[in-house]
Amino acid sequence: MKKNTKISTNLAKITSPNDIKNLSEPEIIALATEIRRFLIKNLAKTGGHLASNLGVVELTLALHKIFNAPSDKIIWDVGHQSYVHKILTGRQAGFKRLRKLDGLSGFPKSHESPFDAFDTGHSSTAISAALGFCAARDIQNENHNVVAIVGDGSMTGGLVYEALNNAGRTGTNLLVVLNDNQMSIAANVGAVSRHLNDIRTAPLYRIVKNDVHKILGAIPLGKKIDKTIETVKDAVKFMMLPGILFEEMGFQYFGPIDGHNVKTLLKTLQKLQKINGPILLHVVTQKGKGYKLAEESPDIFHGVEPFNIKTGKALKSRAKLTYTDVFSNAIVKLAQKEPKLVAITAAMPGGTGLDNFRKKFPNRLYDVGIAEAHAVTFAAGMAKAGAIPVVSIYSSFLQRAYDQILHDICVQNLHVVFAIDRAGIVGADGETHQGLFDISYLSHMPNMTVIAPKNRAEFENMLRFAVFEHNAPIAIRYPKGEASEILSTHNQPIVYGEPELITKGEKTALISVGAMMDIAYDVLQNLVKQGFNPSLYNARFVKSSENNFAKHLLNYSDIFILEDNVQAGGYGEQLLVNLVNFAQTLQSSAKPNFHFLAFPNNFIEQGTRAELFQRYKLDEEGATNRILQALQG
Amino acid sequence: MKKNTKISTNLAKITSPNDIKNLSEPEIIALATEIRRFLIKNLAKTGGHLASNLGVVELTLALHKIFNAPSDKIIWDVGHQSYVHKILTGRQAGFKRLRKLDGLSGFPKSHESPFDAFDTGHSSTAISAALGFCAARDIQNENHNVVAIVGDGSMTGGLVYEALNNAGRTGTNLLVVLNDNQMSIAANVGAVSRHLNDIRTAPLYRIVKNDVHKILGAIPLGKKIDKTIETVKDAVKFMMLPGILFEEMGFQYFGPIDGHNVKTLLKTLQKLQKINGPILLHVVTQKGKGYKLAEESPDIFHGVEPFNIKTGKALKSRAKLTYTDVFSNAIVKLAQKEPKLVAITAAMPGGTGLDNFRKKFPNRLYDVGIAEAHAVTFAAGMAKAGAIPVVSIYSSFLQRAYDQILHDICVQNLHVVFAIDRAGIVGADGETHQGLFDISYLSHMPNMTVIAPKNRAEFENMLRFAVFEHNAPIAIRYPKGEASEILSTHNQPIVYGEPELITKGEKTALISVGAMMDIAYDVLQNLVKQGFNPSLYNARFVKSSENNFAKHLLNYSDIFILEDNVQAGGYGEQLLVNLVNFAQTLQSSAKPNFHFLAFPNNFIEQGTRAELFQRYKLDEEGATNRILQALQG
Repeated sequence: MKKNTKISTNLAKITSPNDIKNLSEPEIIALATEIRRFLIKNLAKTGGHLASNLGVVELTLALHKIFNAPSDKIIWDVGHQSYVHKILTGRQAGFKRLRKLDGLSGFPKSHESPFDAFDTGHSSTAISAALGFCAARDIQNENHNVVAIVGDGSMTGGLVYEALNNAGRTGTNLLVVLNDNQMSIAANVGAVSRHLNDIRTAPLYRIVKNDVHKILGAIPLGKKIDKTIETVKDAVKFMMLPGILFEEMGFQYFGPIDGHNVKTLLKTLQKLQKINGPILLHVVTQKGKGYKLAEESPDIFHGVEPFNIKTGKALKSRAKLTYTDVFSNAIVKLAQKEPKLVAITAAMPGGTGLDNFRKKFPNRLYDVGIAEAHAVTFAAGMAKAGAIPVVSIYSSFLQRAYDQILHDICVQNLHVVFAIDRAGIVGADGETHQGLFDISYLSHMPNMTVIAPKNRAEFENMLRFAVFEHNAPIAIRYPKGEASEILSTHNQPIVYGEPELITKGEKTALISVGAMMDIAYDVLQNLVKQGFNPSLYNARFVKSSENNFAKHLLNYSDIFILEDNVQAGGYGEQLLVNLVNFAQTLQSSAKPNFHFLAFPNNFIEQGTRAELFQRYKLDEEGATNRILQALQG
Repeated sequence: MKKNTKISTNLAKITSPNDIKNLSEPEIIALATEIRRFLIKNLAKTGGHLASNLGVVELTLALHKIFNAPSDKIIWDVGHQSYVHKILTGRQAGFKRLRKLDGLSGFPKSHESPFDAFDTGHSSTAISAALGFCAARDIQNENHNVVAIVGDGSMTGGLVYEALNNAGRTGTNLLVVLNDNQMSIAANVGAVSRHLNDIRTAPLYRIVKNDVHKILGAIPLGKKIDKTIETVKDAVKFMMLPGILFEEMGFQYFGPIDGHNVKTLLKTLQKLQKINGPILLHVVTQKGKGYKLAEESPDIFHGVEPFNIKTGKALKSRAKLTYTDVFSNAIVKLAQKEPKLVAITAAMPGGTGLDNFRKKFPNRLYDVGIAEAHAVTFAAGMAKAGAIPVVSIYSSFLQRAYDQILHDICVQNLHVVFAIDRAGIVGADGETHQGLFDISYLSHMPNMTVIAPKNRAEFENMLRFAVFEHNAPIAIRYPKGEASEILSTHNQPIVYGEPELITKGEKTALISVGAMMDIAYDVLQNLVKQGFNPSLYNARFVKSSENNFAKHLLNYSDIFILEDNVQAGGYGEQLLVNLVNFAQTLQSSAKPNFHFLAFPNNFIEQGTRAELFQRYKLDEEGATNRILQALQG
């Protein structure tokens, strides 16, 4: 086939990486165009991670042409950039239900395909996992390749460093592809980011460094040339040693190369396949490549809802304020009153709403990058030194700082406010991103208080309470999505450890945790229609050092607790323990029946909030039926 | 005062750092000798962290002479090397009760002294915390110095990297002292360690690099000199750029300097005080310095029990096997049968007993350094690739890998065995090191099983069960100290989810978790003497996907659960939930009284196991009395 003739490929016929092994370079390039069209067309309907996948089309094609998955292991860090990989490994049909209930996952899932070597989701895990694959390969005398693809954003996570440090020592055959698109979700922060930028902008950055390791120690060094070398050294360091950070970690560094140039990619990967030891290949890509709107606003096209391809606008417009919006506004107002208030985010200024705070108080916003553990210990230092840090991190990512919360914040009983966004069901991101464990992992921490608002107004009150009235560790959890306006006239003052009574009834008590009130209130109406007269409580204090709730509950026959957390270690179980203790203390014979309406103790799959609440019988209908069954049973 | 005359100082008169401000260099040197004598004499009686403190005598003196604590903030990473600091800040008298119940802590505690700026305990937190102090200082327009002292062992922890990365960007005034004693508790591992070693051994390593940043870009660079520079570059890299790893992170690097040379230390610190921005000072010290036996065996003198100063031998000899010893032997036997078994430790080959495994299977032991998060994700990769990893980490350090256990192991339901040493009370290390949370943080993780042995034989059985019979995540928790031989003839086969019945009685059930059996069995005898006839169960499965225990318990009037974990989220609470659910399912009216004999939901202070069990009424007497009181109402 001649160059520059019209190349025809047929993406639909590609059902495994074998189908691209014999394609020519121009055919690969044509296929890349088809894949981009496929991605844009499909994601415009389903939503998903668009920009990052557009950025890795050529890289993914090159990896699958050169390496032989699934015997060679390809591990995608974070994994939301694995769509092209999924397209090439027999899952094109799945894109119609991408990120939908029971549909194709937006992340690598080994139960979905043998080509998905390792499940990812949270950032910065791929090199550790890949090194595990290498070690297992080496002791079993196997011989395949292991490749980890890591974005530059993930490079701020300490886990990457722990893994690089180990890989560098072992000398095992491992290829780390640094997919450098010059931003993670937000623009990168930190010295490593600057380091990468130095590499990209250095005048000599295209020097091929393949032979670096062969030249060692060629000139004699002595004290006489110190001065010269000191001079050269700096020049060298700042202009000619792009990969030195990685080389110091024991890696051979190659690059940077153009991640959209198929020829370069294929040639380089082919060459690297033959080199032993840990290798880092620095590939520069452009997020959103090939779709002009996404190239211009990669942030906006990072994760998209269904959109119009021509305009780039979302098909559904969002009318109401989200909890994130409420936080975004409220925290600025609090900061205006309290000069000691500072805000900390781990690479999510947009997602957490703190971009607004940054505009108003640029010097009081700390974006530490994807580095949740550091964010929390840094907050501990600030609190100890007299500031009032508000740390906003998504529920499932805050897990990464469990020890720092316990060991650095709670042991010293420091006044740090955690604004836990995406608590409960997050939806399309699935198992690894659901915020269903925060009540469980925070509630057994001494000195920690956890609260959850039922609606917008209460959320604002709780933020005020956390900043001004509670001088100790406190976490406020709130879900993704629109801020509820339910019961907006119910605004009883917040009293430490006390629930809020919404309706006083008898025999039956419904207790709602935070945003579950939307459902609980409807359930209440249904029960009333059925002739029951339940009380309804808003728990408010999910975990507090004094739990004053039990005393209100002894006279009920049945207690139902609705919470969007796994049952294990959740609020319901805590309340049961309190109640039993309290009853025994009083030697009361009253022992209400206790019913948990929480998520089961499993990982919860992807799906919309509505679908998952329905599936787990936590929606209005499901909860009403379960309660009626228990009451009438 | 002339040089070389006899210098007389008087350590006892030093009650604050002010008392050393005016001392001459020879006086400081003489004081260092006195401090070493003080440390050796006192620690020979009390035990404690000897070698690391002998290593930082001059460094601590120099820091307190140059800086003005407590307005300047001195933050000790890990903190077990803060004894000299405590001596100089008015706490000499406390050393008589060092690490004893209600005595002086072996770690910095801000409630103990305003000179302890920040509480530490776990590794690698100091730079993050120090950066928090810097940020709070900067926004409040204050002007003091902040110093973090970090050992080279801590440099393998990812948190350090997250913090360096951030500090490098901010450009804030921060001094990080890298206390490089060429080992952490065990010899260091990884690329950073090698990097530090390169620095120490490089021929030109004494070049003063103070002016490095002034010389930038002095020679013209072009393509013509590429080749030369490539050659120079490597020579330079490997011999002349000691601090480049740190400089790449945005720090100005100084050193390495001799950490026992008072003159050099004082001169350098004085100079650095005047330099702006983040600075890393590399100080080389010798662990155990000044006590020959400790210099020769710094490992053995890291943490000591009371010892004979002349011989270095512990005063009490240890006769019985510890749980760690049992693990150490058993895991080797299992590895002989199962070639896929590999072992992973995070810088604790000695402490976990895996040094023995390393001798037998050097290629199957992975010491990843102080990097618990990486250890776990690395294990996940190995398990996914077909190995059976046994990860042995102390309970309180495993907290650092919470997300990795949940997200990388449990989501994929991987067969990784956690051997959790130091579960329960660890004793003298206090709040930050007690293993009192592992049941709580593991029990709500889907797919995780947690088991605990009552004695040596059961521990061996459980290890076998975990490796050969349970193909999913499983954790075995066992305490510090001697392996119990109690009930050694009770060896019923292990059945998933089932407890072991020790004695069948009626009305009352005692349920013991793991090592609590030593106490529970004595309590049983006491109750029998008082005319009661309780059943005694060994819980065995602290957390399992099927809990089959509840059905055995409905007919009891009172149930007592003994566990060495905090009550919140612990085994007792789980069992109560199971029981209540089970009773409700059966519509049984039987509702036994439930009594928790666990640690309260607080951080538990230092003290011996016996003292703390007594204080919290979990010893034989305390537990017996509490139970009798409950039964006799």
